[in-house]
Amino acid sequence: MKTYREVARVVYAPQSSDPFTFKHYDPEAVVLGKPMKEHLRFAMSYWHTIGGAGTDMFGGDTMDKKFGATDPLAIYKAKADFAFGLMDKLQLEYYCFHDADIAPEGKTFRESLGYFETMVDYLAALQKKHRKKLLWNTANNFSDKKFMAGAATSPNADVFAIAAAKVKAGLDAAKRLGAAGYVFWGGREGYDTLLNTDMGFELDNLARFLQMAVDYKRKIGFTGLFYIEPKPKEPTKHQYDFDAATCMNFLRKYHLETEFKLNIEANHATLAGHTFQHELRTAAINGAFGSIDANQGDLFLGWDTDQFPTNVYDTTLCMLEVLKAGGFTSGGLNFDAKARRQSNTFEDILLSYIAGMDAFALGLRMAVRLIEDGRIEDFVRHRYASYRSGIGAQIVAGTTDFDALFKHALTLQDVEVESGRQEYLETIFNEIMFGK
Amino acid sequence: MKTYREVARVVYAPQSSDPFTFKHYDPEAVVLGKPMKEHLRFAMSYWHTIGGAGTDMFGGDTMDKKFGATDPLAIYKAKADFAFGLMDKLQLEYYCFHDADIAPEGKTFRESLGYFETMVDYLAALQKKHRKKLLWNTANNFSDKKFMAGAATSPNADVFAIAAAKVKAGLDAAKRLGAAGYVFWGGREGYDTLLNTDMGFELDNLARFLQMAVDYKRKIGFTGLFYIEPKPKEPTKHQYDFDAATCMNFLRKYHLETEFKLNIEANHATLAGHTFQHELRTAAINGAFGSIDANQGDLFLGWDTDQFPTNVYDTTLCMLEVLKAGGFTSGGLNFDAKARRQSNTFEDILLSYIAGMDAFALGLRMAVRLIEDGRIEDFVRHRYASYRSGIGAQIVAGTTDFDALFKHALTLQDVEVESGRQEYLETIFNEIMFGK
Amino acid sequence: MKTYREVARVVYAPQSSDPFTFKHYDPEAVVLGKPMKEHLRFAMSYWHTIGGAGTDMFGGDTMDKKFGATDPLAIYKAKADFAFGLMDKLQLEYYCFHDADIAPEGKTFRESLGYFETMVDYLAALQKKHRKKLLWNTANNFSDKKFMAGAATSPNADVFAIAAAKVKAGLDAAKRLGAAGYVFWGGREGYDTLLNTDMGFELDNLARFLQMAVDYKRKIGFTGLFYIEPKPKEPTKHQYDFDAATCMNFLRKYHLETEFKLNIEANHATLAGHTFQHELRTAAINGAFGSIDANQGDLFLGWDTDQFPTNVYDTTLCMLEVLKAGGFTSGGLNFDAKARRQSNTFEDILLSYIAGMDAFALGLRMAVRLIEDGRIEDFVRHRYASYRSGIGAQIVAGTTDFDALFKHALTLQDVEVESGRQEYLETIFNEIMFGK
Amino acid sequence: MKTYREVARVVYAPQSSDPFTFKHYDPEAVVLGKPMKEHLRFAMSYWHTIGGAGTDMFGGDTMDKKFGATDPLAIYKAKADFAFGLMDKLQLEYYCFHDADIAPEGKTFRESLGYFETMVDYLAALQKKHRKKLLWNTANNFSDKKFMAGAATSPNADVFAIAAAKVKAGLDAAKRLGAAGYVFWGGREGYDTLLNTDMGFELDNLARFLQMAVDYKRKIGFTGLFYIEPKPKEPTKHQYDFDAATCMNFLRKYHLETEFKLNIEANHATLAGHTFQHELRTAAINGAFGSIDANQGDLFLGWDTDQFPTNVYDTTLCMLEVLKAGGFTSGGLNFDAKARRQSNTFEDILLSYIAGMDAFALGLRMAVRLIEDGRIEDFVRHRYASYRSGIGAQIVAGTTDFDALFKHALTLQDVEVESGRQEYLETIFNEIMFGK
Repeated sequence: MKTYREVARVVYAPQSSDPFTFKHYDPEAVVLGKPMKEHLRFAMSYWHTIGGAGTDMFGGDTMDKKFGATDPLAIYKAKADFAFGLMDKLQLEYYCFHDADIAPEGKTFRESLGYFETMVDYLAALQKKHRKKLLWNTANNFSDKKFMAGAATSPNADVFAIAAAKVKAGLDAAKRLGAAGYVFWGGREGYDTLLNTDMGFELDNLARFLQMAVDYKRKIGFTGLFYIEPKPKEPTKHQYDFDAATCMNFLRKYHLETEFKLNIEANHATLAGHTFQHELRTAAINGAFGSIDANQGDLFLGWDTDQFPTNVYDTTLCMLEVLKAGGFTSGGLNFDAKARRQSNTFEDILLSYIAGMDAFALGLRMAVRLIEDGRIEDFVRHRYASYRSGIGAQIVAGTTDFDALFKHALTLQDVEVESGRQEYLETIFNEIMFGK
Repeated sequence: MKTYREVARVVYAPQSSDPFTFKHYDPEAVVLGKPMKEHLRFAMSYWHTIGGAGTDMFGGDTMDKKFGATDPLAIYKAKADFAFGLMDKLQLEYYCFHDADIAPEGKTFRESLGYFETMVDYLAALQKKHRKKLLWNTANNFSDKKFMAGAATSPNADVFAIAAAKVKAGLDAAKRLGAAGYVFWGGREGYDTLLNTDMGFELDNLARFLQMAVDYKRKIGFTGLFYIEPKPKEPTKHQYDFDAATCMNFLRKYHLETEFKLNIEANHATLAGHTFQHELRTAAINGAFGSIDANQGDLFLGWDTDQFPTNVYDTTLCMLEVLKAGGFTSGGLNFDAKARRQSNTFEDILLSYIAGMDAFALGLRMAVRLIEDGRIEDFVRHRYASYRSGIGAQIVAGTTDFDALFKHALTLQDVEVESGRQEYLETIFNEIMFGK
Repeated sequence: MKTYREVARVVYAPQSSDPFTFKHYDPEAVVLGKPMKEHLRFAMSYWHTIGGAGTDMFGGDTMDKKFGATDPLAIYKAKADFAFGLMDKLQLEYYCFHDADIAPEGKTFRESLGYFETMVDYLAALQKKHRKKLLWNTANNFSDKKFMAGAATSPNADVFAIAAAKVKAGLDAAKRLGAAGYVFWGGREGYDTLLNTDMGFELDNLARFLQMAVDYKRKIGFTGLFYIEPKPKEPTKHQYDFDAATCMNFLRKYHLETEFKLNIEANHATLAGHTFQHELRTAAINGAFGSIDANQGDLFLGWDTDQFPTNVYDTTLCMLEVLKAGGFTSGGLNFDAKARRQSNTFEDILLSYIAGMDAFALGLRMAVRLIEDGRIEDFVRHRYASYRSGIGAQIVAGTTDFDALFKHALTLQDVEVESGRQEYLETIFNEIMFGK
Repeated sequence: MKTYREVARVVYAPQSSDPFTFKHYDPEAVVLGKPMKEHLRFAMSYWHTIGGAGTDMFGGDTMDKKFGATDPLAIYKAKADFAFGLMDKLQLEYYCFHDADIAPEGKTFRESLGYFETMVDYLAALQKKHRKKLLWNTANNFSDKKFMAGAATSPNADVFAIAAAKVKAGLDAAKRLGAAGYVFWGGREGYDTLLNTDMGFELDNLARFLQMAVDYKRKIGFTGLFYIEPKPKEPTKHQYDFDAATCMNFLRKYHLETEFKLNIEANHATLAGHTFQHELRTAAINGAFGSIDANQGDLFLGWDTDQFPTNVYDTTLCMLEVLKAGGFTSGGLNFDAKARRQSNTFEDILLSYIAGMDAFALGLRMAVRLIEDGRIEDFVRHRYASYRSGIGAQIVAGTTDFDALFKHALTLQDVEVESGRQEYLETIFNEIMFGK
């Protein structure tokens, strides 16, 4: 097997036996009228890929990602250089980051801000040099001790202020770097016990915070999309942004629903007790389909495992929802995934991204086949046919009422509902996936 | 142990060794200014208590609740007689039912309707005789084969019509019986697989259905409250009324939020991955606290076990939320609970209700003690003190913005957030529960 | 789509557009030296297929499987005729049943026994006529009211006796019908609450029961294998046969481990928090790999959904374990699966079996490809290479001890463990599944 | 509230309003014939209490436990001084530790060993000075990178050797410090994916390792008990010591069952899908009840939360099992619990231990009351009465067989199993807990 350095560029080579090639992702191949790369809008995410070192709650680092540097700022510059080199190798056009991913923490907010701004300049130069774009950035308002009880929902008003200041700096950076969006992930906005929590007040504060972000965005003329990222639990017992429906209720309650789309993460969906597909469908139905954090969880484990996505059933259903929702506009598909703790070499980083990118490329191809096959969509259309004439059409048109429906019901004898045919539809799905 | 017949009336007798007495529920005892029975508004529910026979997915009946009758209508009259006798014994003032609980099913909707109306008259007479009130009624639009794919969300418009007709009949009955409310529990409004489901269309139909119900309510002048009852799964894989937040998002989306409150069930809360307390708090925060289905689930099991509530931690936290929300108005506390399949005697019905009523009475007493003790509430009030002056007060008043907060943040050195003291608060809770 | 009657025989026709054909299951096709049908040994199971009517905890039947008969015995004969006709259509050579599946329940044990023996004769004739074989039979010692607290673990000794009598009759039938095995599924051997349960005593009784079954098997000369079927919960809160490891501990404790193999069910595995593959591996490691109940659960639901298996990742990993364990001897692969409640036509029965049989046939083909590809197996072999020489070989040979290892450890500098390469292995797996 | 320093000693003062007093734990109070402290044998555990800093997967430290020291060895000496001071304040007589908890890690095993031996001497002196005893010690064979794929089950033989060497050193220390036991917790003995794992080989190696530990124990004359600590998952996807039954199967398979008892942890029990009580009962039934890690999980979260135990239902059922099993011999009750991340003051450490110790003291008192009350035990004894005469007695005596039971069954008419009375028993339980 080649070493990381020996891999110049991962290319589409479906018949190659070289593990460092794509078997399904052909960036320029056109499907349904546009290149795969535009359908998928893959992004590298800094969080695990550049920052992660294999640590877990029971053990320390298994990888060193300091690249030989020792000075804090030098370390982060080396990380950035590595990040852009990695994107080149993997043909990734987009990336995304938390503020704390790209720059060292200072002793005060002022000092941290200085580092951050330095690094934003550094990234701007790299973007230009490597022709990369920022899909979105966000603020890490959860790792530092002062955020232990939340940021916008902290019981401490100074913490709220620092959180706001960090988001302000993040929005300034987003504008400077031409980001296509900005993400709000809840972090520790939630509670560990209701015994010490005024949940109503905290949610009001969260809305105040987001409204100020919207105002500031307008003020500086940042035109990227705002995303909320649902997650049900971890690190807190209850995260306020539990799932897509919970986020939409929050946004509607505070009249913010036109200002935010959702960034759906596969592993967060499953932790909330939903399939990934369900959350994407919910977002779309609520007019809030935005962007995707691509990974997979382990349904036998109760925490965020953030595994690189390799289950092609899941990637296919995901891409089917994306295509049905009209595809990405400003959003994209970033890998909020980490190589397993034991996959602790730089080669594993490449192999993990290849695993995920190929799984999604395959999912895209399968979704296209499903649509072109048409059997499943036809089945669904036929299933609701009774709403396209007679009493059904009146229901949809709003031209009937309980009295009229009551009269209609009295005329009915045996009503037979057609079989749902789940097993047959799953067989068609397998046929598409595995060929006849 | 006495037999069912030998128990004339279950009375408050805290020192008695008779199992058929209340140890904590003293209906007329005044706490926080009103009698316990008004705080708790206990209701018998027909569904399990009068209809259930101990069946589960792996076995048949373990109890016979036909009371010696054989003719269908006679069976349901005998059930009604038993129900009101049971309420008398247990000092229950309220009851609630599904349409299918109180009357036999006919071969056509018309025939079923006839039975239903006969039985509504019969219940009206019993209500008067026994001085009982109807807390709410509802429609069983899920058990019959024709509802296999939903009712208001069925792909078959005739099924929608029959569902509407049944709710119309139910609302007529609610008015006739002076019901304090009417409940909409989702039944099979949901999906088993997205492969065969147009979720967006189904939700639109659900909203159309509820709007028609609101219109009909107005038309006939029914003044009881409407409740949606959240449940995440079972019988379907995904129930559209997943949890309180999901229901509120749905209601807000379709501008129905002023027409419905929520009926929170403990076991449905836990199946959704939430504590009972969380769902009650969420309802209250959204202005939708309404009524309660009191039971408990088994957190080691993944289905609705509907056990009689006996965990006093849970009943205490529930009653604390109820008191904080201002107490019940039209709603109440009904036992959507079933005696275990092995608790298959009529004595067990009494013992189960006593278990549940005493657990909630104790919960009420404990909640009052918590409020009167004041330490936990003081802790919470103190915790958010920084929002009552300075920058915090400006945040709450909406008189600051990101620029101002940024300037404030630059002035801050070490920000120390106070300890959350969870363990200490739990110790106080135990002190209240178990005495020092 | 054809009707059930119009489908004479489901044949392998990979290019056909007829849904009533196999796309992957070619019974006589030879892979790894034997026909697919011998690798898979598919069996129809009576329980859901012939007995199930679509009922669930929230609703009644959606299918009628009485075939126009009204007399109890006539109904069961019609069911048997249907069953063998179905096996013919689907090219199934094996079947399996509970005693209560094949014959009506009488008012007394004596009467039930009479029906049972009549039906055993009837099945014997059908077996001969249709050239079918019995994979295994078992006793339904859980549905009737008297089994509400268990059978061999009932607190009532008469119930133990009836359970024993039913198993005796079942073993007699197994011998008469030439069954390849006999299954012990726990039913209600478990508890709902430890408050009323002497778990130690109940387990002793279970062991006594199984020992008597072994003695009786010897006495009558029944030579089929005995299987225990693990399940963790449902219908009871805790089933004593929780998972494969728990069953093996029980068998070892009571010195029964040489008398029983395990019948592993996919959905029971997942309810226990294990993958299907894990349970198969555990059985094999403990020398207890026996037979398989093929279905799939829904990992988002907490009860036994018994879905027809369609996930090809799972069927592939299953067949990989089967092949590694040397393949089935007396065991086989029966479908303890039910068509969804909404899949309520006879055509759905065919479509569901086709879904499951093709998914497993595909799984077998994929497993063969994985083995022939060899990359994953090579990786694993290489990974443990350090145990084939030096200190590693001494560890395996048992020729070292803590003192020697301590001395060895003192000589070591940096010990580098190789990457686990999970993502790369998953990519190879996808390559095998989906081609390059 | 007092500061940590101001609390000299936490004493039993049930009427005090000082939070730094015990309300239920009265060490010398005699119940059931021995002092509470001998029933409970409380131990401080180093792992979280002395080592933990509030870190989680999403954030860094919230507490500093270096006590002003900077030199590695000085830090660990300061930690030890603090630990013994804490034990004095809390009246704790026992403690327990991992090797890595008490001493800094060196660059090589040799260097680490030097630190470890120095610190063992230091602890020996502190034990003598403070009159404390070591309940058990153990090895941290999971945190360091080299253990990323396991220790005794590592694919790398050198890692096996280092693990063995560390346990050897630990056993030497156990003997030197007079430990009452030595614990084997699985750490990373398990797998993340079966794709790269030879599970059978790894389990064989684990058995070889434990056999060598037994041999070494004999050789040096260490007379403390050996414990295995079950845990189902985390850090690995599957931990080999899944639960009590799995551990016992492993021990029996390798003929080690007489050499090991179990150390049951509450939170590990619940992660495995069992109640804490179930795991204790399983241990007792298998003759393996040994020691307890006292904490509580959050049943809504899927990871090891290790909360200080405050649920008195759980502590009562735990102590009931302990009393029924005859009480602790060499084992005890250590707090493998951590104050919440937000409970980040030294006062919280005291408050957390007080919470846990009082909850268990209350549990002990409640369990005694349950036993003295006798109603539940009587109910259970009566429930199995049919096994004390007639056919039941023959079953127990082993003097009957299937033929005889069959004859007996044929004589039976209606067999009525008595009600399981779960709700009534729960009411009795609440009566004991909360008084009438």
